[in-house]
Amino acid sequence: MIYLDNAATTKPSKAAVDAMAHSAEIFGNPSSLHGLGLAAEKEIRAARKTIAERLGVDLKSVYFTSGGTEANNTVIFGAAEAKKKLGRRLITTKIEHPSVLEAFHRLESIGYDVVYLTPGEDGRISIDELQAAANAETTLISVMHVNNETGVIQPVDEIRAAVKDIAPNAVIHSDCVQSFGKLDVLPKKWGADFVTISAHKIHGFKGTGAFYAANTNALRPLIYGGEQQNEVRPGTENVGGILSFAAAAGECRANADRMRTLRLKFKDALAAAVPDIRFNGSDEYNSGSVLNASFVGLKAEVLLHALEAKGVYVSTGSACSSHKPQPSHVLQAMGLNKAEIDGALRFSFDADTTEDELTEAAQIIAAEAANIRRFM
Amino acid sequence: MIYLDNAATTKPSKAAVDAMAHSAEIFGNPSSLHGLGLAAEKEIRAARKTIAERLGVDLKSVYFTSGGTEANNTVIFGAAEAKKKLGRRLITTKIEHPSVLEAFHRLESIGYDVVYLTPGEDGRISIDELQAAANAETTLISVMHVNNETGVIQPVDEIRAAVKDIAPNAVIHSDCVQSFGKLDVLPKKWGADFVTISAHKIHGFKGTGAFYAANTNALRPLIYGGEQQNEVRPGTENVGGILSFAAAAGECRANADRMRTLRLKFKDALAAAVPDIRFNGSDEYNSGSVLNASFVGLKAEVLLHALEAKGVYVSTGSACSSHKPQPSHVLQAMGLNKAEIDGALRFSFDADTTEDELTEAAQIIAAEAANIRRFM
Repeated sequence: MIYLDNAATTKPSKAAVDAMAHSAEIFGNPSSLHGLGLAAEKEIRAARKTIAERLGVDLKSVYFTSGGTEANNTVIFGAAEAKKKLGRRLITTKIEHPSVLEAFHRLESIGYDVVYLTPGEDGRISIDELQAAANAETTLISVMHVNNETGVIQPVDEIRAAVKDIAPNAVIHSDCVQSFGKLDVLPKKWGADFVTISAHKIHGFKGTGAFYAANTNALRPLIYGGEQQNEVRPGTENVGGILSFAAAAGECRANADRMRTLRLKFKDALAAAVPDIRFNGSDEYNSGSVLNASFVGLKAEVLLHALEAKGVYVSTGSACSSHKPQPSHVLQAMGLNKAEIDGALRFSFDADTTEDELTEAAQIIAAEAANIRRFM
Repeated sequence: MIYLDNAATTKPSKAAVDAMAHSAEIFGNPSSLHGLGLAAEKEIRAARKTIAERLGVDLKSVYFTSGGTEANNTVIFGAAEAKKKLGRRLITTKIEHPSVLEAFHRLESIGYDVVYLTPGEDGRISIDELQAAANAETTLISVMHVNNETGVIQPVDEIRAAVKDIAPNAVIHSDCVQSFGKLDVLPKKWGADFVTISAHKIHGFKGTGAFYAANTNALRPLIYGGEQQNEVRPGTENVGGILSFAAAAGECRANADRMRTLRLKFKDALAAAVPDIRFNGSDEYNSGSVLNASFVGLKAEVLLHALEAKGVYVSTGSACSSHKPQPSHVLQAMGLNKAEIDGALRFSFDADTTEDELTEAAQIIAAEAANIRRFM
């Protein structure tokens, strides 16, 4: 098996699996007053510290959620609501994950004024366009760090300076689900008020994410209940999910240079072996973890299943919308035509992906694409 | 160790632990088009079927969440919002879990008219009082099945008939977190539109819950995003949490009679051995899983720690509010005085609790209570 769908999800690491099993032993409710509760609470605190250190922030500013989707929703609805007296202009991009886009669509339906920035053909949004959209009524700007379909890095570190004078009341959020553990995610350095991260993209378990909040006064909670997590996100903590998230985060190695090199070699191999192929999104600004390629004239889903039969696992677009196949909103926003979009596959790597695997995968992909073309 | 805090949380069972470990092997994203995704999706479907069968409902009406708190919030906010054009009267009780009460407090703060029913001294709400509160503008009635602090069973099966003519637009929700797996939870038989359940109260892992929804048209989502769970609750599914929830649910045995008998024996043993003790809540309408007792004149927290030193784990009130000790809202609503509330401990059992354990616990409790009184 050559698994090239790491942007959809990753296999929990041994450390994550061990941490999850351990959580079943220290099974007390972290809110319980007795020692079983305190033991669980102490381990959650250590996990929070691990995550906070990776983000370069205070541990009290990290809140665990059920995943990236809930974290994005909490920040977007929470900040829009908390700041609505200061204005109703919200800014995001056309290439966000559905958990960001659909939250903004909902806000639009209840009266907010949402601007969706269009990326260039390279998949990157422009700071000039952001400045043009920003105004004194702008309260929230949400731009992802790395796009999940193309791997393109957005200029999230330039936003604060760019809007400081134009939109002084705006808080800045970045969905860093695809970058955390691969690139530096440093909200304080960027001047970002909120970032979102997720465990299962970095070899933790599905069901746990987190957000950083510089200041929870700028956030109305999404969920109300007990006193957990300072009432910013109540509910009994997912102890196993949190401990395994920290275990996985602790193992992540910063290796973007190696991954970018691998990605380019893979791209060159495909370019040399596959006719009518087109690569989507910037190479210069790429995390190295995703290669998006259009097999122009082919149906991506047909190629996906042909590759699967040979043990190569890839995806069309993002997993979150694969079950109801529709043209990728990301590639549409980048201006690709129908044939380019219909033939697009996403190959996504992780730290364990090897050059040999990619060499073999490129050969299989070239052979299967040629095979499909032969029978078309 | 004698663990009598099962209402706070339970130890994951071997079947739950095994299901969680298995989820790390079938690690594909359930939304992925390839076989790894489909395999995960298939197992989620089987888990959903197990849970649905326990509830006597169609599997399509079960939605997984991050726990009881999120499930309660989803139903309460979602139903109030979806039906707001039909009225703004909402009815709940003073003895609900914080994840219900705080959601209603929030709705009150944004203009809803919320009636909080007061229980009798036996901890049970009255259908007459409910009928008096209900009117044509009532859109949501939320009454828990079993109270988490007293084990008292509420008349949730009588609500539909009682309000059918008075509040024809009302949907009925019941928080069944403390009853699922212990008593029959049968929303269709009750005429309930929504019920909430949680994994970690029945030997699953923390971080997973679910709700049953008879009809999602009566529900605005709390969380927006991808296409998972029919967009009623999007986000990559917590595969491990869901599989282990079903594994735990599959093992639950209906044994309320045995537990009620055990509880009464334990109560009698304490009554005989401890002076100035008072028991809180109905014996007749009790799940058998909780005994709430006031050690009048003692500080519950002092006794809790003394018991812990002897290996007996209990709680004061519910775990969700233990860290910020404040008088139990449940016992206050039942009309207890300050000394009775300050001295109240909750003993909570599960299917594995034995008579021998409870006999030993009663002796330890009597000795420790006497010891504390001696030094007061």
